[in-house]
Amino acid sequence: MRHVKAAILGAGFIGRAHVEALRRLGYVDVVAIGQSNQAKAERYANELGVPKAYGNYMELLQDNEIEVIHNCTPNHLHYEINRQALLHGKHLLSEKPLTLTSAEAKELYELAASASLITGLNYNYRQFPMVQHLKGMVKDEDLGRVNLIRGSYLQDWLLHETDYNWRMEPRYGGTTRAISDIGSHLFDLVQYITGLRFSEVLADSSIVWPTRYRSSVAKESFQRRAEGELEPVDIVTEDYCSVLVKFAGGARGVFTVSQVSPGNKNALEVHIDGGKASGSWKQEEPFLLHLGYRDRASERLVRDPGLLKKDALPFLHYPGGHEEGWTDSLKNMMHNFYRAIGSGAPLSDSVATFKDGYQTMLINDAIVRSIQSGSWEKIDNV
Amino acid sequence: MRHVKAAILGAGFIGRAHVEALRRLGYVDVVAIGQSNQAKAERYANELGVPKAYGNYMELLQDNEIEVIHNCTPNHLHYEINRQALLHGKHLLSEKPLTLTSAEAKELYELAASASLITGLNYNYRQFPMVQHLKGMVKDEDLGRVNLIRGSYLQDWLLHETDYNWRMEPRYGGTTRAISDIGSHLFDLVQYITGLRFSEVLADSSIVWPTRYRSSVAKESFQRRAEGELEPVDIVTEDYCSVLVKFAGGARGVFTVSQVSPGNKNALEVHIDGGKASGSWKQEEPFLLHLGYRDRASERLVRDPGLLKKDALPFLHYPGGHEEGWTDSLKNMMHNFYRAIGSGAPLSDSVATFKDGYQTMLINDAIVRSIQSGSWEKIDNV
Amino acid sequence: MRHVKAAILGAGFIGRAHVEALRRLGYVDVVAIGQSNQAKAERYANELGVPKAYGNYMELLQDNEIEVIHNCTPNHLHYEINRQALLHGKHLLSEKPLTLTSAEAKELYELAASASLITGLNYNYRQFPMVQHLKGMVKDEDLGRVNLIRGSYLQDWLLHETDYNWRMEPRYGGTTRAISDIGSHLFDLVQYITGLRFSEVLADSSIVWPTRYRSSVAKESFQRRAEGELEPVDIVTEDYCSVLVKFAGGARGVFTVSQVSPGNKNALEVHIDGGKASGSWKQEEPFLLHLGYRDRASERLVRDPGLLKKDALPFLHYPGGHEEGWTDSLKNMMHNFYRAIGSGAPLSDSVATFKDGYQTMLINDAIVRSIQSGSWEKIDNV
Amino acid sequence: MRHVKAAILGAGFIGRAHVEALRRLGYVDVVAIGQSNQAKAERYANELGVPKAYGNYMELLQDNEIEVIHNCTPNHLHYEINRQALLHGKHLLSEKPLTLTSAEAKELYELAASASLITGLNYNYRQFPMVQHLKGMVKDEDLGRVNLIRGSYLQDWLLHETDYNWRMEPRYGGTTRAISDIGSHLFDLVQYITGLRFSEVLADSSIVWPTRYRSSVAKESFQRRAEGELEPVDIVTEDYCSVLVKFAGGARGVFTVSQVSPGNKNALEVHIDGGKASGSWKQEEPFLLHLGYRDRASERLVRDPGLLKKDALPFLHYPGGHEEGWTDSLKNMMHNFYRAIGSGAPLSDSVATFKDGYQTMLINDAIVRSIQSGSWEKIDNV
Repeated sequence: MRHVKAAILGAGFIGRAHVEALRRLGYVDVVAIGQSNQAKAERYANELGVPKAYGNYMELLQDNEIEVIHNCTPNHLHYEINRQALLHGKHLLSEKPLTLTSAEAKELYELAASASLITGLNYNYRQFPMVQHLKGMVKDEDLGRVNLIRGSYLQDWLLHETDYNWRMEPRYGGTTRAISDIGSHLFDLVQYITGLRFSEVLADSSIVWPTRYRSSVAKESFQRRAEGELEPVDIVTEDYCSVLVKFAGGARGVFTVSQVSPGNKNALEVHIDGGKASGSWKQEEPFLLHLGYRDRASERLVRDPGLLKKDALPFLHYPGGHEEGWTDSLKNMMHNFYRAIGSGAPLSDSVATFKDGYQTMLINDAIVRSIQSGSWEKIDNV
Repeated sequence: MRHVKAAILGAGFIGRAHVEALRRLGYVDVVAIGQSNQAKAERYANELGVPKAYGNYMELLQDNEIEVIHNCTPNHLHYEINRQALLHGKHLLSEKPLTLTSAEAKELYELAASASLITGLNYNYRQFPMVQHLKGMVKDEDLGRVNLIRGSYLQDWLLHETDYNWRMEPRYGGTTRAISDIGSHLFDLVQYITGLRFSEVLADSSIVWPTRYRSSVAKESFQRRAEGELEPVDIVTEDYCSVLVKFAGGARGVFTVSQVSPGNKNALEVHIDGGKASGSWKQEEPFLLHLGYRDRASERLVRDPGLLKKDALPFLHYPGGHEEGWTDSLKNMMHNFYRAIGSGAPLSDSVATFKDGYQTMLINDAIVRSIQSGSWEKIDNV
Repeated sequence: MRHVKAAILGAGFIGRAHVEALRRLGYVDVVAIGQSNQAKAERYANELGVPKAYGNYMELLQDNEIEVIHNCTPNHLHYEINRQALLHGKHLLSEKPLTLTSAEAKELYELAASASLITGLNYNYRQFPMVQHLKGMVKDEDLGRVNLIRGSYLQDWLLHETDYNWRMEPRYGGTTRAISDIGSHLFDLVQYITGLRFSEVLADSSIVWPTRYRSSVAKESFQRRAEGELEPVDIVTEDYCSVLVKFAGGARGVFTVSQVSPGNKNALEVHIDGGKASGSWKQEEPFLLHLGYRDRASERLVRDPGLLKKDALPFLHYPGGHEEGWTDSLKNMMHNFYRAIGSGAPLSDSVATFKDGYQTMLINDAIVRSIQSGSWEKIDNV
Repeated sequence: MRHVKAAILGAGFIGRAHVEALRRLGYVDVVAIGQSNQAKAERYANELGVPKAYGNYMELLQDNEIEVIHNCTPNHLHYEINRQALLHGKHLLSEKPLTLTSAEAKELYELAASASLITGLNYNYRQFPMVQHLKGMVKDEDLGRVNLIRGSYLQDWLLHETDYNWRMEPRYGGTTRAISDIGSHLFDLVQYITGLRFSEVLADSSIVWPTRYRSSVAKESFQRRAEGELEPVDIVTEDYCSVLVKFAGGARGVFTVSQVSPGNKNALEVHIDGGKASGSWKQEEPFLLHLGYRDRASERLVRDPGLLKKDALPFLHYPGGHEEGWTDSLKNMMHNFYRAIGSGAPLSDSVATFKDGYQTMLINDAIVRSIQSGSWEKIDNV
């Protein structure tokens, strides 16, 4: 694999995770950090041991040494930076969501389609070996016809009314929150595992705290305690949403997302009920699959190279019982993305494309319409 | 407690369970079995060691020794027999559903209200000690304001297209199946634990097998293998249903029932997300509550007399780790019902009333309307 | 089945559990209660709805109506009452331990062997359906050759130094406590499931509280809070013991019992590692078996009539997911014992015999010797 | 942190894991790979993107650019290479065991003590955040006085008689196998968490397969299927061992290791029973602690920065629910080792020292003596 040079735009929680994941590969050099100002860029670059620092993303994009851009900025900057990265001929791995609106997503999808660049979205839950095995089980019809898909993504980091963060402000986070921040992961994962497309949705949502209290001191995502003075803010994005789904082909789905469910930290779960067996995966126990049967004992399949399908094996690296977790899924993400750049191999289908990102935005739009109409809304598939 | 004399109408799976539960009390004598014909009645009475046998329920109702009727007949006979039992002045414990239609349920509810008889419906899941403790937690605001209720009741006994049983025929089982057979338990339990009323519903359902194959040889509920010749039957009742709920007061709910989810035998689950904590109970692990917290360790509370709320203690009888299960919930049901008869004490609110049964029928009706309309339907509360 | 008449000697916690279990059968009539004085006997008989009350066991044994004695008295009375019951020609179900010493146990075993009476010991953990299935798996060599047996029985009811109860006094409870009270269940269960005999033991024990505080107010087993004045008592029986075992045939074992392990209520567990598979059963999740495999997914087998071996089916009575627990194991115990009396069928091998009770005493003796010698001690097998 | 240059001796499974973990830090450069011959060294260096390759460790040790040696060679080479590394003035992180004999371990311990070099042993299970939290609970007396420690380390990779690997040959793996390979991790972890020293041991072991079959084709550790011709080999090292322990201060322990327990991949578990609470950690669910209580609900503590003790926080890097696993423990190991080199800070006590390694060898020796004598053997503490 040839060495590839990358830049990280936005070295917050997730940007730093990208840096660490890339370094594990051994063939990617993170050569630049971009932030919204030079001082911060230099500070972060220094902390992370990265040689270059840019306080302006347009300048960074003109650095010809840089082949790949990681867009790890806040949601409202995704569209413009992604667009410019493509226009500057950079390979691009964007954090989700692709954009704040489906119109923007469409534009980027089309732009990417016309460029000969490697593009991807960081839906990293696809990258767990047990997800790959489950996908393989669906493909090989080990579960039989898929009849019912149940899923949820529950968190508790916004439980209290003093929990506040930029993601709550539509101009930064978009007009949906639980749906787009965590629902998008869930919907992408379900479509990826089953190969089934959302056809129609019926949804309900609620805002548990119509007023929240913003602290005068900025808070990171997932950070707990609010500090400083508190000021009330009207909340217009949902804390909770449930969606009933008709899939193309007749399967049904029911999905719930919540950021106010105590005791749930990052509880992404998918349950697939087929005609022969059911398969369940919980992200908080990532190395397990629960396989349910009617007429024989149900199974608890562990992440062990001797037990998984061949196609899942490249996604695991250590023997059974030496657990690989969230950080390892990110490493897989990076490897599967960069392999296409470093070796010229076709991009792995485990990497979500801008088409997938656009599709997820269309699901988001239909859910919003259904919440407003109180009735079934069709998804315009890409 | 004075001794009370009871008769069981319909000594199938659930009728026999009633007999056994009653005998554990020590102060209830099962004096008669009623079946649809004399030979069967005598056979069952003999097997069960019960002195009298009636092949006709009207005759049985005229037996003055009998104070209490247990209606354990198939669903389509509930209305008429319940009605006659009340008209004959018998105390009455009916299996659910109370009737096949809400109009009939209303009639029985009104009839029961005007009689000075003890009446109840066997929603026995209320009778588990951990359910009582969870109810106490809601009442004492240990969970905070209830924001979200998630629940499901999943089974797999109708997974295959050769799984067939009288419950699928609307004339015997009613026009809904998963909703009324298992959904009714779930909805009753949620309302019982939280004290919240269903206000509006948005629902979807599906028939996984529009054609099933009926065997020429009759099969019990839960029995597995079809035998004999198979004939195709059109299925008009749902295998699956999900319901989004608005509760009075603003809480939201999402509930799923399915009889085609492999690996699930009788998987009734309730998750209550409050502003302070969450509480979860799974019927298949009946002796546990999972309590979720944001800012401290989550808890796993076991059925132990030293750990439960005072109001839950009468529902448990053995030390921690000496598990009481489904059969013990039925014993509790019987004791709570008969105590009102044997001692004249007021009927425990743990016993579902005909009002509760009528209310559940109204929920059922609204769900059916919502499936047809594809939009929100209001519940007419009793 | 003909009706059989029984008497309960000692209607405390476990005696009452016998009464309730017997009543579920429908063909056993509990006709008398025996206590240490007439007033208490009458009070208990009255509470339980039992017609006769005896304040003297010798008088009770002369009541010719009574065919079967349940010896539910404290441990130190087992030997004498069991002996007299046999001498009076009564069928006898004794609580464990059979006696306080192996010499006494030998005498009763020989006495029972020479009488044509049905005798049994209440090792009720044998009576769970999943235990029966696991036993069947061993017998059918589903696990392969048994290499290693790991087990534990952990409780926390004696955690604090103010936890005190008659079982701590050697004259009432015997010279061992954790070993005889709970270890005996564990050892019996292991021998029953595997059919393997203990050959040699190497053991260690400890007394966590060499002084405990006895309350002036009597406390039941499992009761929590001490009340009244406290007086110090020297403790000479163990709170904890671990035993290494060589089984006849070469398998090895390691077993731990403790009454001071916080969070464990009645945590009896058995893990059998065979050459093909492992099987694990935990009494606190009685309806599950965990089956471990090397080269395929491990299994989680639930108590479902469609999934268990034929020989296990008589031990379960309700469909999967309608959990039967500790109380149901006791019902099975009673039915398997009384069937031999009521129908003349041979006694089920699921009922522990006086030979088994004697054997368990010999294991107990060898463990005590090993604790003293610090080296391997042989078991004298019956 | 200044950049530090490292070399890996032995780039097999664990050596490669070291490389990846080091790269995550960002301030360690892996500059050389050492193997037993030049061709292999070059191949591995090339695969891993490492600049230098040495086919002879003595030459590598003379490379002045290299500051730190990672000894990832097979067990029988540990002593000599560790010794030479120290004599050449290199900082040294050795894989466990430190040596094959306690005499050698003593020599290295003394050598390291006299050198001003940073030395460590890769007992990486210390590096999990939940282990750190549990250690903090013991230190803060949250569990009360430690009474009983139960532990096990179970695997199944040597279940079949055709499972064979160099670790079975005493000259390469040492005279014990299960005890030294996995028991050493368990014993080190127990001592690390509790701060208690092993005082006396009583042990039993067994060789489940006295003859195994070696394939003509070499097999990696954890690899499954034997290939090629099979030849019988006499096995003299144990597949199973259990150890009863007296700790200094009076606590007792019981520990089991097995490489033939089906369904267990890398099942390292520690249960600590204290006077107030119990704490349990299972390496296969590394992000959870189970905390058991007598008089209140037991707890399930998840790896969440808001819930752990301050001293545990440096060991975790991602929000709750974004699971960090085995690979992340190795990253922590590396960071805690290299921080002392890169910044001159004192070595974290989370890094096992050569003293710890020597101590573990002394435990190993006492276990071997006890197996032979069948009686208690004292540990000579360092």
